[in-house]
Amino acid sequence: MMGQTRFSQFLESVEGINPKTLAVRLKEMEKSGLISRQVYPETPIRIEYTISEKGKALKPIIEQMAAFSMKYCCDTIFKDGKPRTFKEVFGKQIKILS
Amino acid sequence: MMGQTRFSQFLESVEGINPKTLAVRLKEMEKSGLISRQVYPETPIRIEYTISEKGKALKPIIEQMAAFSMKYCCDTIFKDGKPRTFKEVFGKQIKILS
Repeated sequence: MMGQTRFSQFLESVEGINPKTLAVRLKEMEKSGLISRQVYPETPIRIEYTISEKGKALKPIIEQMAAFSMKYCCDTIFKDGKPRTFKEVFGKQIKILS
Repeated sequence: MMGQTRFSQFLESVEGINPKTLAVRLKEMEKSGLISRQVYPETPIRIEYTISEKGKALKPIIEQMAAFSMKYCCDTIFKDGKPRTFKEVFGKQIKILS
């Protein structure tokens, strides 16, 4: 989640995900304490999702997994099959928690 | 793998694993290019497993996952249910590849 908070925004930003799958994933993440769901009883109703501290703490794991995949599984994840570094794709070095 | 190379050593060092599961896991890891299996045609036959560069590259992912679990899933993984840092358990800070 990079600043998005609404279901429709996730639907646009997560490549190729369908609404049903997204709903299931959000429910799973809420149950695991990675995000929280806030309902604003306006008209029309507004629902916002916020990432938790636990959710944010997944970032270094995901970054390390991305770096690994881009180097060692590049034939599966890139059309041209060529390896890339994390910095080449995301424009920054990986930081780490300690 | 911390220096071990033999099936019997893994069996002792991986807590609670049974021989059949270990054999399946080693075969999977060989197929994924994480380890290689070398047969020495001696009497008795000797088989040694070596970790590959790709296998070693999983280390930062596993370390990050360990750090996350020990902090956020401590009620599941520790008998006393208390969180611990990576350094408290393994005696070193986590390093990172970039």
